[in-house]
Amino acid sequence: MSSTTQIVRGGVTAAQEFFAAGISAGIKASGNPDLALLVSARPAHAAAVFTTNKATAAPVVVSREHLSRSGGLARAVIVNSGCANACTGAEGLDDAREMAAETARLAGCPVEQVLVASTGVIGVALPMDKIRTGLPAAFRSLGADQGPQAARAIMTTDPFPKEAAARFEVGGRDAAIGGMAKGSGMIEPMMATMLGFVTTDAAVPTPLLERALRDAVHDTFNAITVDGECSTNDCVMLLANGASGLTVDEASYGAFVGGLTAVCRELALGIVRGGEGATKLVTVTVTGAASADEARTAAKAIANSPLVKTAIHGGDPNWGRLIAVAGRAGVAFELERAAVTIGPIVLFDNGRPHDERAPEAAAYLAGTELTVAVDLGAGRASSTVWTCDLSAEYVRINADYRT
Amino acid sequence: MSSTTQIVRGGVTAAQEFFAAGISAGIKASGNPDLALLVSARPAHAAAVFTTNKATAAPVVVSREHLSRSGGLARAVIVNSGCANACTGAEGLDDAREMAAETARLAGCPVEQVLVASTGVIGVALPMDKIRTGLPAAFRSLGADQGPQAARAIMTTDPFPKEAAARFEVGGRDAAIGGMAKGSGMIEPMMATMLGFVTTDAAVPTPLLERALRDAVHDTFNAITVDGECSTNDCVMLLANGASGLTVDEASYGAFVGGLTAVCRELALGIVRGGEGATKLVTVTVTGAASADEARTAAKAIANSPLVKTAIHGGDPNWGRLIAVAGRAGVAFELERAAVTIGPIVLFDNGRPHDERAPEAAAYLAGTELTVAVDLGAGRASSTVWTCDLSAEYVRINADYRT
Repeated sequence: MSSTTQIVRGGVTAAQEFFAAGISAGIKASGNPDLALLVSARPAHAAAVFTTNKATAAPVVVSREHLSRSGGLARAVIVNSGCANACTGAEGLDDAREMAAETARLAGCPVEQVLVASTGVIGVALPMDKIRTGLPAAFRSLGADQGPQAARAIMTTDPFPKEAAARFEVGGRDAAIGGMAKGSGMIEPMMATMLGFVTTDAAVPTPLLERALRDAVHDTFNAITVDGECSTNDCVMLLANGASGLTVDEASYGAFVGGLTAVCRELALGIVRGGEGATKLVTVTVTGAASADEARTAAKAIANSPLVKTAIHGGDPNWGRLIAVAGRAGVAFELERAAVTIGPIVLFDNGRPHDERAPEAAAYLAGTELTVAVDLGAGRASSTVWTCDLSAEYVRINADYRT
Repeated sequence: MSSTTQIVRGGVTAAQEFFAAGISAGIKASGNPDLALLVSARPAHAAAVFTTNKATAAPVVVSREHLSRSGGLARAVIVNSGCANACTGAEGLDDAREMAAETARLAGCPVEQVLVASTGVIGVALPMDKIRTGLPAAFRSLGADQGPQAARAIMTTDPFPKEAAARFEVGGRDAAIGGMAKGSGMIEPMMATMLGFVTTDAAVPTPLLERALRDAVHDTFNAITVDGECSTNDCVMLLANGASGLTVDEASYGAFVGGLTAVCRELALGIVRGGEGATKLVTVTVTGAASADEARTAAKAIANSPLVKTAIHGGDPNWGRLIAVAGRAGVAFELERAAVTIGPIVLFDNGRPHDERAPEAAAYLAGTELTVAVDLGAGRASSTVWTCDLSAEYVRINADYRT
């Protein structure tokens, strides 16, 4: 069966019969948009991945419950920024449940078909009066052209909104996938969060939808790092409402997951590009690993190393730091067979440095979209992750007293 | 058997019949001291712990071989700064062996009784002509009062030398323990290293000496972090020459390891205080863990978190970041029973924040020697580690292009 996938303009309303809104409910003192709503005209199959942080925020607890009780169906997603509703005890759970119940009432669907997400300051109660007055206003604003407003309303200190969309075609039928995301490190005065929301008008049975989300997230949202932190609220939600008439099955799974991965990658790279204090997007590729897991472990260790990130910030082709991180990453590593490549320039291989190429590598590092690669010399597996540089601005952003 | 331990002034020559030297051999372009020599008047029992980094530097390979071939005896230690002799292939190994052989010839001892260490730039060959002319000069400078010179000669970008000493007394006899260390993060233009050298004039059989070093290092050098990196050259060496007449056995082991731990802790905390860009020394204590290993894992995760370290730098009592790191550390954690304490101030417990105490905590964080504590609410084990804050100066130091 022939299939094609292409990236198109658009966001969370690129898929048919998805409507979005983004309004200012007054949760943020700044008056910036802080309440986003996503509604499918018909019940959608839904899948989600949540933070593995054990200090789980209330909305994560509630969304997990709802997905389980609804058998993987969802009709609406309600998201606020400006308050994470995390570390807020039983009261926080009550608030998240009320936020879902009120959304369900307005959407005319069972409460378990509503998913909830929050991002912002932790340890602070949700201002429920503002949620209560904001919800009807959000419903009044719903539109198929309001994806950009929703993408803005989920932002905290993100420097720009993140949207992406793709179309995929299988055997003459085509469908859309669109999404929005926010995140910039764990950034808000007290903490922030990575949130992603992706929709498709393909029909995808829940088991296949869950598998597709896991597969796509592994190589996109789970392959990025700004500062190695993992928030209490992280989640990616995927809704498939079938409005296009295209049904995804095992035969067309590859085309769907290809499009889904493309959308998730755009969103994930947007988070890294807009990372706190970031001036460069860095692709870190590890080859020659004993296993895919070891390749990922080494790539993440390199991508999170403050010495690597500061060297890249300074345009320093410091291959020794890359070797040293690979050597301490707890994976199989053979110094005599290892290699370090910065852009197209091999700086270390066969146990020997090539420092005469350092000026060329330094010139390459003056760019803003960079690739660094380390071969571990220990096998045939590989992995790619994305990170940004570490700048003094990161420190400035995160050292500011939160009041 | 009664025993006492007290910290005293001094360094690596506080123990009898240890002589040291620190000279400028011209390895550093700056002309600063760069060659340190430590000699025992009689063969000493020796133990060492080395980096676990798989990109092992040549001097680490050679010192490990010598300790094994000598059956744990050492007469001299030769250390250069300014060049790590790491990632230098077969030539680097030859250079490290020649440096040991020449030291052995001048000391009049078998080559396997010489230990070697290097720190500084990686991927650059040792300037052997400078080592060859420097070694006789170092031997001419040897003295029981030259500990401070040796401590200076092992520095790279350390802001100050690190020396410490203690005396311990068992059943009416007493002996000294003294040491020096260097390290400030993985700091040099390409990379740096943590090195520690400790001597005692107690007689300690090798198995007991190895056990004491492992025990002392676990709670000192292995409990500090500046940036979570681990170099290719890290090592701590311990020599016991018996000159005091006091022999350590199982009964007096506690007194010896107590003194040894006190010396190692002073040296280790000196490294953190002098960490790159550091303005604060932070003691991180984790309690309520399911096991000692989990307590250490969580404490290290907190101590290495850029969000925690920047918050402390900015004097921000950001308990949410501490909770979030504990929650993602991969250890047992119960949010409802967890607690966060900054200095004497409880900011979160019983599932509830106490933000009214934030101003008091912010005032406490204006100090330079700080304690933060997290109770995981999951058991009874605990661990303490030490770290420093993360400042824009760290980024500046590490982003500078190395040429």
